[in-house]
Amino acid sequence: MSQAKGNVLVAPGGGPTHVINQSAVGVILEARKHAQVGSIYGALRGVSGIVNEDFIDLTDVAEDKLEKISYTPSSGLLSTRDKPDAAYCERMFKVMKAHDIRYFFYIGGNDSSDTVRIVGEHAKAANHELHAIHIPKTIDNDLAENDHCPGFGSAARFVASAFVGAGLDNRALGGIYIGIVMGRHAGFLTAASAMANTYEDDGPHLIYLPERAFDPERFADDVQRVYDEHGRCIVAISEGVSDKDGNPIMSTLKDMGADAHGNVQLSGTGALGDLISDTIKTGLGLKRVRADTFGYLQRSFIGCLSDTDAKEAREVAMAGVRAALVDGAETGSMTIKRTELDYAVNYELVDIAKVAGLTRHMEDEFINEDGNGVTQAFRDYCLPLVGSDFPEHYRFEAPAVAKKLG
Amino acid sequence: MSQAKGNVLVAPGGGPTHVINQSAVGVILEARKHAQVGSIYGALRGVSGIVNEDFIDLTDVAEDKLEKISYTPSSGLLSTRDKPDAAYCERMFKVMKAHDIRYFFYIGGNDSSDTVRIVGEHAKAANHELHAIHIPKTIDNDLAENDHCPGFGSAARFVASAFVGAGLDNRALGGIYIGIVMGRHAGFLTAASAMANTYEDDGPHLIYLPERAFDPERFADDVQRVYDEHGRCIVAISEGVSDKDGNPIMSTLKDMGADAHGNVQLSGTGALGDLISDTIKTGLGLKRVRADTFGYLQRSFIGCLSDTDAKEAREVAMAGVRAALVDGAETGSMTIKRTELDYAVNYELVDIAKVAGLTRHMEDEFINEDGNGVTQAFRDYCLPLVGSDFPEHYRFEAPAVAKKLG
Repeated sequence: MSQAKGNVLVAPGGGPTHVINQSAVGVILEARKHAQVGSIYGALRGVSGIVNEDFIDLTDVAEDKLEKISYTPSSGLLSTRDKPDAAYCERMFKVMKAHDIRYFFYIGGNDSSDTVRIVGEHAKAANHELHAIHIPKTIDNDLAENDHCPGFGSAARFVASAFVGAGLDNRALGGIYIGIVMGRHAGFLTAASAMANTYEDDGPHLIYLPERAFDPERFADDVQRVYDEHGRCIVAISEGVSDKDGNPIMSTLKDMGADAHGNVQLSGTGALGDLISDTIKTGLGLKRVRADTFGYLQRSFIGCLSDTDAKEAREVAMAGVRAALVDGAETGSMTIKRTELDYAVNYELVDIAKVAGLTRHMEDEFINEDGNGVTQAFRDYCLPLVGSDFPEHYRFEAPAVAKKLG
Repeated sequence: MSQAKGNVLVAPGGGPTHVINQSAVGVILEARKHAQVGSIYGALRGVSGIVNEDFIDLTDVAEDKLEKISYTPSSGLLSTRDKPDAAYCERMFKVMKAHDIRYFFYIGGNDSSDTVRIVGEHAKAANHELHAIHIPKTIDNDLAENDHCPGFGSAARFVASAFVGAGLDNRALGGIYIGIVMGRHAGFLTAASAMANTYEDDGPHLIYLPERAFDPERFADDVQRVYDEHGRCIVAISEGVSDKDGNPIMSTLKDMGADAHGNVQLSGTGALGDLISDTIKTGLGLKRVRADTFGYLQRSFIGCLSDTDAKEAREVAMAGVRAALVDGAETGSMTIKRTELDYAVNYELVDIAKVAGLTRHMEDEFINEDGNGVTQAFRDYCLPLVGSDFPEHYRFEAPAVAKKLG
């Protein structure tokens, strides 16, 4: 058990998910159980709230209020796109020291885990006992060492639900439907579109992932082939698809902004969808080509929640608090490890260097040989993550009536 | 009671909704109760299935299967964008006569109701007893004589849910968020975004409807004002917004297709969102401007269903069958009339000429004086339509911690 008495600080980082508040609430509720804990603070706007000492005192927030907040999507503690450099991390540490923070839980992706690592090093150098734990969170599902990440399951449920609906719409009216899905360099969320497939000819018929080079000519051939077979075609494309030299397809478009991480703006614009749409219209001469860019809807659409995701987001955070307060871990990254395919998980603390700054990509076994779809292994992997009671869809199956006029 | 013995034909028209199958199933289940009915046919792909005699026999489809299909979004009988001309309608009638169709139920919008009218006139001229009834359906909510239309409530629930999530996302990370909503010439669906508003500073802060001229300069001023007040701004804009001369803002964009109705392609492209986004970025110099075009997701997203909408879509169809079979109505358009604001409705058959080809627009009492938002009267109108158990969202409310470093 850690003997350090002091305060707890919880902070969120990066892009919101449907379940990030579950993790924040998990930290708060678990921390309340431990006698070493003084006050429980929440940093507003992630790391920027730490450097600015912008804390709220969560020690006494009523439990039923916390339960309600835990089911609210996006970050109730707000967030930031600041990416701390060395000086920023040092300032973070100084603020923590001033507020007698002994337990720091930072909920975020791979950038966030690196921040935890650096702040932990500052504490060590200053001989201030600080237990700094990274709690996983990202809809991109791209954290190393994790079977999957909190936030992914609910976003996957959204993407799969969207493709069920768009697929049924496309079945009714025909044509080509293209859905552009988030995920930057990892294809998991785009791949989750495959969970929409129930009937043999259901879409998506083609899935393009950032893990495979995107070849516009090959793409056009694929679409034509599916269209010839089904009279329609439903395509899922990752916002992060790149050509064989690794240049994002999007980077061929002008007038794009870049975020504070130096990344090209992939979301919040329909440009990639429209570009690909135009390729099909002009290249293949096909009519009724429609592209939707799912954008921000997919990461915090209220009510489209995976119960598995919600439960794990809370539990992995609670386990992180116990790792620090009970086991006395100084630092580390909490992970979700699957122990049974269908379905059980453990929560384990791993060396933060195994997670920090690294990006997991979709494993080869999850991608089909042609690089335009997913395997059964991926479906088996993804199925429990989208949660229970995923809505089913059905068709009229009835005999044809004989023609009278011919 | 109608004495005409013969067959029933049900067909869907136009764009799918989440509840169009409820109406189809309502027709089938109600028709089964009446002794005059021989077989119950469904036309595949709407009117095109009628001219091609592409019918399936629904007389004996199991009830539990029908119940499952009724909760499946989009049209299980598929659909078409064909807009029948006089010759097309005559052919439709001839096919119906050949198949001894005595009861025709066409589920659709204002184009569809006009088709019902013309087919009915052909039957009358040929002295063939045909009861032709229009069953309302449109997410645009733009049918005359109706308090609201089946399909609208579920789409409104999607739009409101999307704006809750996007609003929470925007609250966490700041910037300008623009959501482009379907609806062509009627602003109801865009207006439904207002149902996302719970806390005083929740978005959408601005709502632009096709019923009011869209002035880019006025728009920029509005956004700047909200941004100055809240440090962020959430905007809902109808795909159909037009300038003061009635030219769609979208029509200033090149490379647009047109559907068979001669309409400009408004959906399935992110162009309008990106155009407006660029206006804000370059005109106001504001950072982090994001635009999502909700596209096809909003009309058939599986699981985002208004229970009120589902129930009424079925009941209005069943009432239509009774109007024909019990009351002996020759033709007409079924409507939903509200009898209590909060909340009760009647289903009434009205003269089809009062509905056919007409477009209802948002009433003045629903739009605020500045033309950039909705009134409390609209919120009261819309609230019961999005269905029960609309998910709530909550915030952390806790005392600030005193700064130590300042």
